[in-house]
Amino acid sequence: MRRATIKDVAEKAKVSLKTVSRVINNEPSVMQATRARVLRAIAELDYEPDPSARNLRSGTTFVIGLVYDNPNPYHIIGVQNGVLAACRETGFGLQIHPCDSSSPLLADELADWVQRSRLAGLVLTAPMSERRDLIQALTARGIKLVRIIAATEDPADGACVFVDDREAAYEITEHLIQLGHQRIGFLWGGTSHRSSGERYAGYEAALKDYGMTVDKHLVVQGDYTFDDGFRGARRLLALREPPTAIFGSNDEIAAGVLAAAKSAGMNVPYDLSIAGFEDSPFSRQSWPPLTTAKQATEDIARHAARLLIAQLRSDAYDDAPAPLHNQGFVPQLVVRGSTAPMRPAAARPLPSDPS
Amino acid sequence: MRRATIKDVAEKAKVSLKTVSRVINNEPSVMQATRARVLRAIAELDYEPDPSARNLRSGTTFVIGLVYDNPNPYHIIGVQNGVLAACRETGFGLQIHPCDSSSPLLADELADWVQRSRLAGLVLTAPMSERRDLIQALTARGIKLVRIIAATEDPADGACVFVDDREAAYEITEHLIQLGHQRIGFLWGGTSHRSSGERYAGYEAALKDYGMTVDKHLVVQGDYTFDDGFRGARRLLALREPPTAIFGSNDEIAAGVLAAAKSAGMNVPYDLSIAGFEDSPFSRQSWPPLTTAKQATEDIARHAARLLIAQLRSDAYDDAPAPLHNQGFVPQLVVRGSTAPMRPAAARPLPSDPS
Repeated sequence: MRRATIKDVAEKAKVSLKTVSRVINNEPSVMQATRARVLRAIAELDYEPDPSARNLRSGTTFVIGLVYDNPNPYHIIGVQNGVLAACRETGFGLQIHPCDSSSPLLADELADWVQRSRLAGLVLTAPMSERRDLIQALTARGIKLVRIIAATEDPADGACVFVDDREAAYEITEHLIQLGHQRIGFLWGGTSHRSSGERYAGYEAALKDYGMTVDKHLVVQGDYTFDDGFRGARRLLALREPPTAIFGSNDEIAAGVLAAAKSAGMNVPYDLSIAGFEDSPFSRQSWPPLTTAKQATEDIARHAARLLIAQLRSDAYDDAPAPLHNQGFVPQLVVRGSTAPMRPAAARPLPSDPS
Repeated sequence: MRRATIKDVAEKAKVSLKTVSRVINNEPSVMQATRARVLRAIAELDYEPDPSARNLRSGTTFVIGLVYDNPNPYHIIGVQNGVLAACRETGFGLQIHPCDSSSPLLADELADWVQRSRLAGLVLTAPMSERRDLIQALTARGIKLVRIIAATEDPADGACVFVDDREAAYEITEHLIQLGHQRIGFLWGGTSHRSSGERYAGYEAALKDYGMTVDKHLVVQGDYTFDDGFRGARRLLALREPPTAIFGSNDEIAAGVLAAAKSAGMNVPYDLSIAGFEDSPFSRQSWPPLTTAKQATEDIARHAARLLIAQLRSDAYDDAPAPLHNQGFVPQLVVRGSTAPMRPAAARPLPSDPS
């Protein structure tokens, strides 16, 4: 029996040669039903396409990779869901790769992964997306990537989605100031994340604009975790003059602050106002629910993946539409039950060391 | 200039032909440094291996897929981390695929994905792993898979990891009974998950063994979500004779119960004992932290992925070690602050409708 050809497949599936070729090439944008018909014809005819023709022009597959190093499951799932939404729109697959962002061998590790899995490109989240040496090393090896970064404006140095954490942190701090709080604690989320520095800058700018000075005893270093929020809050609440409000630089930190306040018998928000950042599902499920900044994590990640895929298609096909543009997002203040006007001093419990 | 051969690469990289071949085939178990040396030699010599020789014998790649449909981020991340650990041990990549477990087209969707991405095999989580029609359809198409299921013993119908949820739910219910609770509510986690039925069976068996009857007003249907926990608890707490303890069939449900109790001004655990299931990080971060059953989600998922990969390697290479065996896990009771002895009736608040 002679071997089946692509023409046999096209005739059996009642589609054009071009369509069979698109299916063989795993190209997106073939209707699901058409794809199924072509695949059935291929199976029935035992047709074997030339394997070297089954990939993108560059020899990679229709799979992108997502790189993350974040301790927060809600954040990771949000990012994954956004990237997966863009993949579904275009028929791409998604490989995931958690990593140690501080590893000096990270460029080799990622390049090895891309090569072995023949990935078409990468979505890099923070803090990897903010390591200039890493970006340069990956780009030098010809790896296509898009970055999600914290920045007030487009740095115009490659494909990225930028999130203005500074502006949003300013608004949260302003909200606390307008509630009458004079002593507002700030808990950092790890210095390797540019977002944490940006959020601190927003906090500092708001205090300055309202004529308040930064008391460095009210600022505590830590990571983007519940445990560091708990520890940081315990330290702040043990001060001789504790804060009446604490801004945790993400929702996990704020949840840790909430647990610390409750374990100390405090009534939130009346004894202590607490604000977080991100609007993770977590922030709506705590009691009281958390005032936060809505970060639209899924939308941000979806746009990043669309940007990458548009770039890949534009590189691979002459007739592809022009790539999308970089886009900025500003998280929006969401006020919930964890923040309240400061109580007048007389109504607060007496300090343990009255003077 | 003559084209470089595999022998040139082996000489330049100072390794055996077999090692070059292993690197080209993306085979796991080549040391990172050796792999890098071979890849460098390939790049410098501009050597192009035959693309048809770059895959597993079956024509698939060294990538497995993880299929999930679960609303709980902590659970998904736990499963992913376990599967990724097994992938890292063996050099496999991981693609992820969230899906709608109730879709009648799911077999086509998954087969299409496996074919397009040339996946070597799948890890199926519940409830997909428990749909017999789906398993049969995938197996009939030659797709290699391993299932994570809820079962008291190995069903001996293919590669699986089985988790004895019934036994663990029995222990949780027994713990509540031994604290003196007579009216214990149960919130289901979705009938499509066999785990939820198994947990209910454990609850029922414990009540029976202690001579108590199941009051069906205390049993509420729902899904494995915070919101359904909140709604279910509101319904139970509005009963004329409300329960003094509620067993939510996962930690998200229990967190919803906790929020409902707090929003009703109740003091947990003194007015209401609450237990969850899974021991997600969430359960340690609520206030009070939740009594639960420690499910070892990461270990379970890691074993499942190891089982799949061992099977794939055994199929692909004659010299591979024998595949691992199916394995069972029993979640362990973890007692925390959300459960306490029932207070004598006199100490409880008066019912709103005294009789």
